[in-house]
Amino acid sequence: MIRVESKRRDRNPTVTQTYQAKIYVTLRPSVLDPAGTAVQSGLSHMGHDNVEKIRIGKYVELTLTAADTRAAETQLDQMCDQLLANPVIENYRFELEPVGVAA
Amino acid sequence: MIRVESKRRDRNPTVTQTYQAKIYVTLRPSVLDPAGTAVQSGLSHMGHDNVEKIRIGKYVELTLTAADTRAAETQLDQMCDQLLANPVIENYRFELEPVGVAA
Repeated sequence: MIRVESKRRDRNPTVTQTYQAKIYVTLRPSVLDPAGTAVQSGLSHMGHDNVEKIRIGKYVELTLTAADTRAAETQLDQMCDQLLANPVIENYRFELEPVGVAA
Repeated sequence: MIRVESKRRDRNPTVTQTYQAKIYVTLRPSVLDPAGTAVQSGLSHMGHDNVEKIRIGKYVELTLTAADTRAAETQLDQMCDQLLANPVIENYRFELEPVGVAA
């Protein structure tokens, strides 16, 4: 009886997993970062003159539902390439964490 | 002889450590995120309609020199409160990693 239940769940295509994604978008090292330079100058004026190499990027948190981790990663790659990051000047990386089973 | 060397190094105030800091600035949960809503709408139009709870924050990388981890943390708290984050509407957290000994 338990095995039958288990099989049925495996076959059900509507069972999806919810994931929490944390996406980090950073400028490529070869690209100048005027905002970072401005912040460094501001910090220096405030007395923090031991700070260097400031680079400012974006940090995006979101949840998404997917059949499995692989599907979620594929979708995140698409989303980053198409909208969240500019691949010409930015790199991105993300962390994925399952948070629960959606219906 | 070795103990004398060691004492001299402890007393030397110019020996500092270089740290790499990663700072994450996020909107407080009670604050609306219009940019996040716009991104969610954009993703939905592109077919990614299984994505929710998008929050957009800042990600700052920098290096700083300090006598020890405690001093570096204190300085980072000051920098975040004064310039990098707006404490009224934003939270921040940071990770600190030693990368080498500066002169």
